[in-house]
Amino acid sequence: MKSYRKELWFNTQNRVEYINITLQVNECLKESGIKEGLALVNAMHITSSVFINDDEGGLHHDFTVWLERLAPHAPTTQYHHNVGEDNADGHLKRQIMGREVVVAVTGGNLDFGPWEQIFYGEFDGRRKKRVLVKIIGE
Amino acid sequence: MKSYRKELWFNTQNRVEYINITLQVNECLKESGIKEGLALVNAMHITSSVFINDDEGGLHHDFTVWLERLAPHAPTTQYHHNVGEDNADGHLKRQIMGREVVVAVTGGNLDFGPWEQIFYGEFDGRRKKRVLVKIIGE
Amino acid sequence: MKSYRKELWFNTQNRVEYINITLQVNECLKESGIKEGLALVNAMHITSSVFINDDEGGLHHDFTVWLERLAPHAPTTQYHHNVGEDNADGHLKRQIMGREVVVAVTGGNLDFGPWEQIFYGEFDGRRKKRVLVKIIGE
Repeated sequence: MKSYRKELWFNTQNRVEYINITLQVNECLKESGIKEGLALVNAMHITSSVFINDDEGGLHHDFTVWLERLAPHAPTTQYHHNVGEDNADGHLKRQIMGREVVVAVTGGNLDFGPWEQIFYGEFDGRRKKRVLVKIIGE
Repeated sequence: MKSYRKELWFNTQNRVEYINITLQVNECLKESGIKEGLALVNAMHITSSVFINDDEGGLHHDFTVWLERLAPHAPTTQYHHNVGEDNADGHLKRQIMGREVVVAVTGGNLDFGPWEQIFYGEFDGRRKKRVLVKIIGE
Repeated sequence: MKSYRKELWFNTQNRVEYINITLQVNECLKESGIKEGLALVNAMHITSSVFINDDEGGLHHDFTVWLERLAPHAPTTQYHHNVGEDNADGHLKRQIMGREVVVAVTGGNLDFGPWEQIFYGEFDGRRKKRVLVKIIGE
């Protein structure tokens, strides 16, 4: 069994942002030389997500509006977590969008359906944060 | 390390539907000959889910009502994604229900608790869509 | 390829409770002797979760309030599942918080970012329930 590990770093301009990381994960896979196995891609921080969905700007707008309705940022005083912090909503939003994805590796490729793309979802950005790519297989 | 791959195809009668796929995943596992490892089961489409919960009709009704409250289909114009499409809500519902499950394989069986069953959750059906089963191990 | 399996048992005092299980999962990893691979940690029951987030009491209070708003326990009669049961809300809450986490194993350690901690999330407690730890690798 082979294993491969890489960290991807991000520093978003905005508090909430979605970054398509499919190409970077694919480069990791090529670098790993693994042909058959599983690729784990996870946020290493607890106010961000890695998820798979559509690379469509309208939908990303919809995600932001929807998550803000389900877990509003303001008023920040509504959350007990917000003592010297203001990111409680980011911890909640991340639970809806998920921490990680596990992707099948087949024939040396990410084994995706037609529209699947991997995103880093940031809910408390404007500072350096990381994603972990771990691939195991042969 | 062995690896196994299979696609399961579905074409639901309704826009929203839940299909118990536990038996089909179990057949895949038997076919794979893998005794110890991990089974990944994921939707290959971005308006559907694979999740584990109870095989109980009342609960499935509750899921549908609840998801409709959290991410309503109508009015479809409320979503920026819905330009020539009407399935933005399906992309949101899938985030709550999840894209994939990873199940332990132990002694040649899906290593489940007493009530765990695997479901395909469709939120934009009435057309052909796929689930991927990928199993690795020995 | 090595594989390792262990069940962790819990019996919470309250209906809703969060238990930090990071140390126990770490002990499993040491016991397994696996240095490189993937660790799956999943609830074996369908009204509980395993998730990764912050070990901070204020945030856990916020989770409870938030989940109660998104999927209220009462009135229990609002759910079709609640015929002779009252835990439909637990099935819904578990979908938001997730069934499982997959954690990279690197150099014999759980490969975590600075604040990542693994929790058992109980939404229908006061009885014995289990978490499965399955680790594969070398």
